[in-house]
Amino acid sequence: MSETRVTGAALESFISGILEANGLTVQDAGIVAGLMTTADLIGQDGHGVFRLAQYVKRIRAGGINPSPAFSLAEDYPASAVVDGDNAMGHLVMNHAADLAVDKARQTGVAWVGSRNSNHAGPASLYAMKALPEDMIGLYVAVGSANHMPPWGGTDMLLSTNPIAVAIPAAKRPPIILDMATTVAAYGKVKTAAQRGEMMPEGWMIDREGKPLLDPKRSAEGFLLPIGGPKGYGLSLVFGILAGVLNGAAFGRNVVDFNADSVTQTNTGQFILMLNIAAFMDPAAFKTSIDAVWDEMKSSERLPGVDDIRLPGERLEATRRERSAKGIPIPPALLAVLDGLADETGVPKVDRKAG
Amino acid sequence: MSETRVTGAALESFISGILEANGLTVQDAGIVAGLMTTADLIGQDGHGVFRLAQYVKRIRAGGINPSPAFSLAEDYPASAVVDGDNAMGHLVMNHAADLAVDKARQTGVAWVGSRNSNHAGPASLYAMKALPEDMIGLYVAVGSANHMPPWGGTDMLLSTNPIAVAIPAAKRPPIILDMATTVAAYGKVKTAAQRGEMMPEGWMIDREGKPLLDPKRSAEGFLLPIGGPKGYGLSLVFGILAGVLNGAAFGRNVVDFNADSVTQTNTGQFILMLNIAAFMDPAAFKTSIDAVWDEMKSSERLPGVDDIRLPGERLEATRRERSAKGIPIPPALLAVLDGLADETGVPKVDRKAG
Repeated sequence: MSETRVTGAALESFISGILEANGLTVQDAGIVAGLMTTADLIGQDGHGVFRLAQYVKRIRAGGINPSPAFSLAEDYPASAVVDGDNAMGHLVMNHAADLAVDKARQTGVAWVGSRNSNHAGPASLYAMKALPEDMIGLYVAVGSANHMPPWGGTDMLLSTNPIAVAIPAAKRPPIILDMATTVAAYGKVKTAAQRGEMMPEGWMIDREGKPLLDPKRSAEGFLLPIGGPKGYGLSLVFGILAGVLNGAAFGRNVVDFNADSVTQTNTGQFILMLNIAAFMDPAAFKTSIDAVWDEMKSSERLPGVDDIRLPGERLEATRRERSAKGIPIPPALLAVLDGLADETGVPKVDRKAG
Repeated sequence: MSETRVTGAALESFISGILEANGLTVQDAGIVAGLMTTADLIGQDGHGVFRLAQYVKRIRAGGINPSPAFSLAEDYPASAVVDGDNAMGHLVMNHAADLAVDKARQTGVAWVGSRNSNHAGPASLYAMKALPEDMIGLYVAVGSANHMPPWGGTDMLLSTNPIAVAIPAAKRPPIILDMATTVAAYGKVKTAAQRGEMMPEGWMIDREGKPLLDPKRSAEGFLLPIGGPKGYGLSLVFGILAGVLNGAAFGRNVVDFNADSVTQTNTGQFILMLNIAAFMDPAAFKTSIDAVWDEMKSSERLPGVDDIRLPGERLEATRRERSAKGIPIPPALLAVLDGLADETGVPKVDRKAG
């Protein structure tokens, strides 16, 4: 059986139709569909259309407000807190990023946080909004479920709290870092379980502190932070900056959005935009980033290493491949999407002619 | 032989005298001495008075400008780039942090970068300047020597590029994260070598990619980043933000300040200040941080773990102990300090009555 692929345009149209059918305005549905499709185009398979059914379930259960009215809880020349009115996180952070760009154009740098937001897909989406503006974007989120205790503990008080940074280059692809503060994101554990594979040592431990290798037993243990106490510290600090500082959920107040579709999550995130023109000539900066690229690439390599990778390099390669050949949709996901189509009367997603 | 301890006041006075004798103004010498002494008081032994002889050597060799004139290379409402005129890094970043506080008071958030700066001691010093202002401080520096290749490579193009974040609490100690993006800071390798101890696996590898355990062979290998490619990504991105964006050194242009006391380093750093009042009531925020403290502390623990630590907890305990009992100075360091005193005619550092 040949793999099913769909074009970005077809997927975007489908997602938009499903969201409209569930009460979002045409405009809002279009914004979310565009961002979710970009997630799939850049290879963030666990954060794109894969999440659509979960989002729809949450909207229908009243856990997401389909017709929100944003407001600014705080507003300073270079900072703001957006109250998302429990909208889809994509809408909140898309708005926050636009606001940060506008402010940074005037002030040099701007930081916009969110409260009453929701899961917004992959962190890189919002950092990347800096790139066409000749800015650098930095995004941090409180993860939508706790999978990690403080270092030495066993109570799951922390999430994978990811960070993304996007830096424009001239002729090279942009540098785009998008990483969890845990060794493995929880999605990788789920994927390993689906494939019947064991996890490498270092991803998870059990409640006795012993390595946990079977992903089917993941509920018995927790994710490990990068660098031990350092990753714990990063997750804690990012959670305070994206959560506590915005009046959003953190620690025991984080709602596990996988297990609970009803309770408002009060998710917090923030986006920081740096206007490169406030530091140096943007063209000169981007040329310098090309030079950084080439310098890293040209490093001598360890035995057995074929290539030095830059953060964002694989993302760009995936985007090119999928823009040309379509986005692969696994059979199980396609069945879920077809089910959503049947439920709502929206036409099924167009399969790409192969 | 009983351990030698000196009071913070005695150490500060001594450092200030030595720096004045080497051409710094009374005011500048006092600022640097205060910051260096704080480094020792908070237990950052590798970044306080331990570095004095190296700084003096560099000033005498012409590698640091003892009578600098700062200027603003760029100036926006919420951002700036300070040209440090090759001053001691402490002076540059102390000035940058003060400027960022002033700007953030107006704009909500401010980011001030540096070029033509130098090694500035521990990262936490500048982030901590936020605390009495009811702000959150975030500091990043390009390290003053490259000890790490890009992931998979063997050319040492990256440094330990540290990050520090300081967050005020109400009744609990502030949360202060201060970490290198490598598993171990290079100072820990040096300390292990001095003590004749082996390093644990995971700190360093050799040029074949094999674990390097003997710290005396450290020149044959390199430090490993936290979380493998993730720590590489963090070091790269922090280096771009603190170095390239400021027009400061990065990659092959980084001067190894341990090996070379003459060449201008053009060190880059940045400080970000977040004015808590632009997000929520500062008193309420600090009470929330107390609650975060208590929540983490109250986690159930893994077998054999006595206590959950918060980042900054040990720092605060060390500060209290040393403020009361004095700063311990190892015999070898004391001999170096006495030598500096003899050379310059400054009185030897006062030993604390024991």
